[in-house]
Amino acid sequence: VKNDELAAIAALVRRLPGSPPGETWIGDDCAVVAAPNGPLLLAADTVVDGVHADLRVTTVADLGWKALARNVSDIAAMGGRPLHALVTVVVPPEGGAMIDPLYDGLLEAALAYGCAIVGGDLTSGPRLVVTVAITGTVDGTPVLRSGARAGDAILVTGPLGGGAADLRARIAGRSARPPARLAEGEVARLAGATAMIDLSDGLALDLRRLAAASGVGAIVDAVPVADGATQTDAMTGGEDYELLLTAADASAMRAAFVRAGLREPIAIGRIVEGDEVLGIPEGGWRHRW
Amino acid sequence: VKNDELAAIAALVRRLPGSPPGETWIGDDCAVVAAPNGPLLLAADTVVDGVHADLRVTTVADLGWKALARNVSDIAAMGGRPLHALVTVVVPPEGGAMIDPLYDGLLEAALAYGCAIVGGDLTSGPRLVVTVAITGTVDGTPVLRSGARAGDAILVTGPLGGGAADLRARIAGRSARPPARLAEGEVARLAGATAMIDLSDGLALDLRRLAAASGVGAIVDAVPVADGATQTDAMTGGEDYELLLTAADASAMRAAFVRAGLREPIAIGRIVEGDEVLGIPEGGWRHRW
Repeated sequence: VKNDELAAIAALVRRLPGSPPGETWIGDDCAVVAAPNGPLLLAADTVVDGVHADLRVTTVADLGWKALARNVSDIAAMGGRPLHALVTVVVPPEGGAMIDPLYDGLLEAALAYGCAIVGGDLTSGPRLVVTVAITGTVDGTPVLRSGARAGDAILVTGPLGGGAADLRARIAGRSARPPARLAEGEVARLAGATAMIDLSDGLALDLRRLAAASGVGAIVDAVPVADGATQTDAMTGGEDYELLLTAADASAMRAAFVRAGLREPIAIGRIVEGDEVLGIPEGGWRHRW
Repeated sequence: VKNDELAAIAALVRRLPGSPPGETWIGDDCAVVAAPNGPLLLAADTVVDGVHADLRVTTVADLGWKALARNVSDIAAMGGRPLHALVTVVVPPEGGAMIDPLYDGLLEAALAYGCAIVGGDLTSGPRLVVTVAITGTVDGTPVLRSGARAGDAILVTGPLGGGAADLRARIAGRSARPPARLAEGEVARLAGATAMIDLSDGLALDLRRLAAASGVGAIVDAVPVADGATQTDAMTGGEDYELLLTAADASAMRAAFVRAGLREPIAIGRIVEGDEVLGIPEGGWRHRW
């Protein structure tokens, strides 16, 4: 039975891989890991049942996948690679049976993206809340949001709106495991991307974030729309996790992706002087309270 | 007005100190910070309103303090020092006015313990949930839970049961800002502590954790009781945040604390062979679901 924290943690420790020599993962006050040689990347993100995911139409395992993948996506948007994750879970009343499938999804994403779960916290509360904090590094210089310059092309790593379309499809029972574009982020960095962001809150909002951070404007010409998605899904729908990047030379960027065996990124517009973002409505996902 | 995520984050960014040259804190997909020279310590902990704290008797600022201090306490229990914190907040409906006082408490603890808040996430949900993930390092070898050996003395950095007594006092309006014994943890490490743990879940449970990790037993002779606390509070009450440590030479350990200008740690018993923990009842805080 996993009806309390101690039993649940003991069961988790048996599932998680052991730590390498010289490191200490689960089971102490802190995890002890080797510091990276390059810069340390840090991010954290929360998934709340009923807000970011709906357990009436999403499995607990898919929610676990998503909680980890959205953090890996933040590392991807720097051109980095993930190292470690800390997972804290608020377990709702009678929710003990969720822990195993939740960790199924978390561990599958951890394996897929080469990120070790090294610690965290299990606690009780009114609703399932999964917070993942992630560390990573870059073998070089991270790609910030602030480097876009007038004249740069704007590209995305895939058609957009899939997140919003998937949500409708899930109501029909489809799985929902958003990707994290880790390989794409690294290739973009190596090929000279000037700025990059992941599209978790929708193109309309995230492009404006990148433009504001860079002190530039942007003009969007045309947006590739994912299968089953609408133009509005593609413009303002969140939960896409494709990367948006800018580059001085769009052709060279596309060629670098092809050489790496990745899908060609799609040019959607260009960076201009000023502070206006044209060709795309206001919108995007934001929490309200 | 802070009625949505974007306005609230903009307000927070104005409150938080700027990042040093070469680092990027709030405002990108990840924070970018320098990696420590020594090992990287990682921990995360969640505070849920109504579970770890009760906003009917605790201020939001005190809850913020506690959310950060309990993570610093985990770093202290390794003999380390904190570096960076990521703060994720689930804001309840109509809870926008909580964000400012919450960050008052978080930032006061961050200042007190020399730990920079470099990123995180703001999201909506049914109840206030504050998750802090922390990084730290050690200028030497971290003190694990697993190093206690038969013959070691068991010491605590202060009288126990204060957390449980404070909870009763708070019902009468007293503040609640648990300390993190950062200086004590470092002195204990430098003076040769063989094992260490912070007492967040109560002596009964946390001593058993340390004994199990070290593969030893323990005998508790007498436990110092905090003002206003009962023997039961001191044995099994949680939320104390004093450190429990073991040392081959209790006198040398006490002398090191005195030399550092800290309160003398109190010997409460000794480590023995076997796996039994005697002189203290079963008990301690554990979440159930």
